[in-house]
Amino acid sequence: MSNKDLLGRRNFIKGFGAAAGVAMAAPALAVSEKADGVKWDKEVEVLIIGSGFAGLAAAIEATRKGAKDVHIFEKMSYFGGNSAINGGLFAAPGTPMQKEEGVKDSVETMVADQLASGRGIADEALLRHVAEHAVEALQMTLDAGSEYHPYLQQLGGHSVARTYQTTVSCGAGITQPLLQECRKLGVHTHNRAKFEGFLVGDKGEVLGVKMRDNYHFGEDQPGKVSNIRAKRGVIMATGGFAQNVDLRMAQDPTLTAEVGCTNAPGATGEGMYEMFRLGAVPVHLAHIQSGPWASPDEGGFGYVSNYSIYNFPHSVAIDRLTGKRFMNEIADRKTRADAELNCRDAKGNALPPILITSYEDSKKHPNTKKVLKYNVGWKFDSIEQLAKHFEVPLAPLKQQIAEYNEYVKTQNDPQFGKNMTEAKGKYIQAPFTVVRLWPKVHYCQGGVQINTNAEVKDSFTGQAIPGLYAAGEVCGGIHGVSRLGSCSIPECMVMGMTAARSMMKA
Amino acid sequence: MSNKDLLGRRNFIKGFGAAAGVAMAAPALAVSEKADGVKWDKEVEVLIIGSGFAGLAAAIEATRKGAKDVHIFEKMSYFGGNSAINGGLFAAPGTPMQKEEGVKDSVETMVADQLASGRGIADEALLRHVAEHAVEALQMTLDAGSEYHPYLQQLGGHSVARTYQTTVSCGAGITQPLLQECRKLGVHTHNRAKFEGFLVGDKGEVLGVKMRDNYHFGEDQPGKVSNIRAKRGVIMATGGFAQNVDLRMAQDPTLTAEVGCTNAPGATGEGMYEMFRLGAVPVHLAHIQSGPWASPDEGGFGYVSNYSIYNFPHSVAIDRLTGKRFMNEIADRKTRADAELNCRDAKGNALPPILITSYEDSKKHPNTKKVLKYNVGWKFDSIEQLAKHFEVPLAPLKQQIAEYNEYVKTQNDPQFGKNMTEAKGKYIQAPFTVVRLWPKVHYCQGGVQINTNAEVKDSFTGQAIPGLYAAGEVCGGIHGVSRLGSCSIPECMVMGMTAARSMMKA
Repeated sequence: MSNKDLLGRRNFIKGFGAAAGVAMAAPALAVSEKADGVKWDKEVEVLIIGSGFAGLAAAIEATRKGAKDVHIFEKMSYFGGNSAINGGLFAAPGTPMQKEEGVKDSVETMVADQLASGRGIADEALLRHVAEHAVEALQMTLDAGSEYHPYLQQLGGHSVARTYQTTVSCGAGITQPLLQECRKLGVHTHNRAKFEGFLVGDKGEVLGVKMRDNYHFGEDQPGKVSNIRAKRGVIMATGGFAQNVDLRMAQDPTLTAEVGCTNAPGATGEGMYEMFRLGAVPVHLAHIQSGPWASPDEGGFGYVSNYSIYNFPHSVAIDRLTGKRFMNEIADRKTRADAELNCRDAKGNALPPILITSYEDSKKHPNTKKVLKYNVGWKFDSIEQLAKHFEVPLAPLKQQIAEYNEYVKTQNDPQFGKNMTEAKGKYIQAPFTVVRLWPKVHYCQGGVQINTNAEVKDSFTGQAIPGLYAAGEVCGGIHGVSRLGSCSIPECMVMGMTAARSMMKA
Repeated sequence: MSNKDLLGRRNFIKGFGAAAGVAMAAPALAVSEKADGVKWDKEVEVLIIGSGFAGLAAAIEATRKGAKDVHIFEKMSYFGGNSAINGGLFAAPGTPMQKEEGVKDSVETMVADQLASGRGIADEALLRHVAEHAVEALQMTLDAGSEYHPYLQQLGGHSVARTYQTTVSCGAGITQPLLQECRKLGVHTHNRAKFEGFLVGDKGEVLGVKMRDNYHFGEDQPGKVSNIRAKRGVIMATGGFAQNVDLRMAQDPTLTAEVGCTNAPGATGEGMYEMFRLGAVPVHLAHIQSGPWASPDEGGFGYVSNYSIYNFPHSVAIDRLTGKRFMNEIADRKTRADAELNCRDAKGNALPPILITSYEDSKKHPNTKKVLKYNVGWKFDSIEQLAKHFEVPLAPLKQQIAEYNEYVKTQNDPQFGKNMTEAKGKYIQAPFTVVRLWPKVHYCQGGVQINTNAEVKDSFTGQAIPGLYAAGEVCGGIHGVSRLGSCSIPECMVMGMTAARSMMKA
C-alpha cells in the first residue's frame, strides 16, 4: 500500500530522480521555527505526540509522577496508532508466568538474545534498560486491565519462553486499557491533531509545537494551526515509517509500494524527520525488518501472522521446490525472512514456502478457525493431498517429515539446530493445517538516537536537545540490524515511562 | 584516532548515555538560519564547500559552463581533503587503456559489478549516471595533467581490469592538477574557511552560507563569521564522517576510537548533518566500509594498502591458525573485510591473516620497496622461514600453496571461485613478500539522498531543496551496502561535474 497521496499538503512526489531538473513548484520549507515573539495559543504541562504504547505509557507515568496537565495528540481519527494492530506480544524476563512454568530467565539472557539478533550493532545499554524495567511495564498493562493468554510463547531468536500475548492476540488489548486508564487519570486526549513542527527557543531548546486541528489523514484540508507551549517539554512517540514508501525506498529500492506491509497507514515518519531537522542523529534507517510469519494470501498483519508465530515451534517450514526444510523455524526474524525470500522457482519467481502443522496442535490457537474460514490457510487429511495441492515433490516431503519427527522425539535438530523444547511430543501428523509464508515490511529499526533517559542526542553538541524526549519505534539503534519479536512493546512502554520520568525530574 | 577534541566550539561529548540526566550546559542550536534581514558580507556566483575530487571537478565544470565567480571553501589548512590521501584508483568502462589491453567492458558491466557489491540496495540510476560519464571525468584529470601507471588493475569485485592508478599511487595525483587547473581558470580557493550553516530564504531555498575565516582545525578560536550570498547556489562536497568517532559509533558501537581509520582527520561530517537539518533524507548511514587491504602494522592508509590492492590478484591470503586460504582474494571489500575479521586465535583474539606474494611479482609495484624498508612487510627466502616467522602450521601451508599454484595453471579456483585471469603465470614461489592484513574504517556509504542532477531531496516535499547540490562521499545510497574499490573517484568527479551543470542550467 502506498501513501503517496495520503500526506495532505506535504505530498510525496514519485520519481524524485525523474522529476528533477524541471522547475520545483513547492520549495522545501524548514518546518520548525524559532519561537521568538510567537503568540502561544495554549499552554500545557506535558505534551505527547502519538498515542501508541509509548505515548500512552508516558502519559500514565507522567501523571503518576505528579503532572497535572498532560496532553496526548494523535493525528489519526482513532487512538492507538500502529500499536493497536500489532500482535500484542510482550517479552519480559523474570515474570510470574515464567516462575509458574518453571522457565529460568534473566535480564542478561534476554539482552544476550537481542544482541545476537542485532548482529553486533545493537545498543546494549538501551536493551538492558528496557529488560530491567519490562516487568514493571507489563504490570502497568495488568493494572490497566489488559488480559493475557494463560501460557507463555517462545518466539524466534528467544532462548526461552518469555512472551505474553493478549487474549485478543492484538496490541489493542493493551492500547485500549491504557487509553481508558489515561482518561481516568485526567489525561487530555486529542485526535485528528497533526504535529506540524517544533517551536524552538534561542538556545535550541524545544519550547512547544505547532499543531493542526481537524486533520483528516490523506486529505488536503485547512485545519487551524495553534502554537502550543509545553512547559515541561515534548515527548515524541510518533512511531516508524514503514508506510512511507518513498522514504523506505530511499533505504531499500526493493521495498516498493507493491511489497506488503503490516503497519497502520499512519506510520509515515514525519515526527522522526522533524527531529532530524532539529539535529537529532539518524541511526540505522537502512535496517527495515520484514516479518517472516506473514502470508501472501491476505493484506497487512492479517490472521496468519499470529497463527504462525504461535505454531512455528511445532511446525515445519518447507521449500515447495525441494520438499525440504530450509530454515530453523524459530531463528530470528531476519534469518527467516532472508531464507523465505530465497524460496523461488526455477525461473527465480517467488515461490512462497509452506508451514505445515499438525491440526491437533494448531487448533489450540484461536486464529486457526479464522485462517481456515477465510481461505488463507488449508486443512488436509493426508500428506498426498497436501503435496498435490501445493505441487511439492511427495517423496522428499514425506522423508523430511519423518526425519523431523525423529528430531521431535530425540529433542535434537541436527538439520538446522532448532531448539526443540517447545516441540516436545508435537509430531507433524495428519490431519495438517498449512499456511503460505512471505515476508512483509513490519518494523523500522532505525530512527533518532536516544540515551537511557529517552533524551534525544544533538549531532553537533553530542548533548541532549533540551525539552525533547523520544520513545518507541521513532527511535533507532536499540535493536541493531534486526529486532526480536515481542521486544517492541516492552521497549515502547519502558522508554515512554522513562521519558516521562526524565521530564518530571528535569 | 579520535577527534573528540578536534571540533572546536562544537565539541563531541563522550558518553552521551553516561552524561545524560545532568544539566546540559551547551544547548543544541539549530545552526542554519532564516536569511530575513541578514546583512550579506559578500556575494559570489558559485559557492562550493570542500576541495576534494567533487569540489574541484564542480569548480572546473562550472567555469567551463560560463560561471565567472566560482569559490571553493576548505576548512583545513591544505586543499584536497580526504581525496588527497586516497589510493588514486579510478575505475571507468570503455577507456583507451582497456582498448589497448583488449579488455571488453561496458557501462552495463560496471553497473552490474557495483549492484552485486551493493547487495540489492544500491541506487542503479546513480551508478549508471556515473559509469556513463566516468571516461569524461577521467579525461578532465588527464587534461589537467594527472599521470597514470601504464597498466590497468582488476580490483576486488570488478569482473574485468578497468582501474587506472595515478603514478604517485595516491589521490593527490589528481587533486593537485585539478587545483592548479582551478587556479588557472580563476577559481577562488579559500582555506581555513569553516562552513557554519546555511542561510535560507522564505521558501526554504538556500540563499547562502555562514562562513568562519581563519579557522584552525581542532582549536577553539574565534575567527570571523561572514554571511556569503551564493547567487546560483551551494554545492556541498564535504566528504564522509569516518573520522567522527561518536557519529560512526552511533551506527556501529564497535567502531571505537581504537579502530584504525584510513581517512584524513577532517572527515567529520558536519556538512552532512547540516543538510539533515534542512530536511535532507539520511540514507544508509549504518553502512560504513572497512578496507580489507589495510595493515595493522602502520597508521592510516599507509604503504601496504596500495601494495596489497595491486598484489591481491596474484597472491594468497592465509589464515595463520590453519595455514589455509580463507577468502577469494579479489572478492568485494565487505566480503573480504568480514572474512579477515573472522581470523582469530583459539581465544578469539585478532590474528591478522597474511598475504603471500612471489617477490618477483610484487616488486613491480613501487610500494614494495617502502613496505620492506619500513618493516610493514617482510621478505622470506623459503616457505619454512615464512611459516616459522608467522607461526603458521607448515604442512597445510605448503599444501595450500601447491594447490593454489595448480589453480594458477588451470586458471580455475574451485576453492573460492577467484577469477584467475590476472594471476596467469604468476605462481606463488620463493622468495616471498608478505604483509599482514586487518580492516580499517575507510568509507561511509551513507549520506544525503541525491538524484542524477546532484539535487538534494527534501524529506517532506519529496522535491529538491532549491539552491542546494551535493556530490561525493557526503551523499548516500549510491553504492548500497558496500562500495567497490576505485569507484569513489569517478563518483565524486562525475557528481561534482553534474552539480555544476545542474546549477548552471537552473
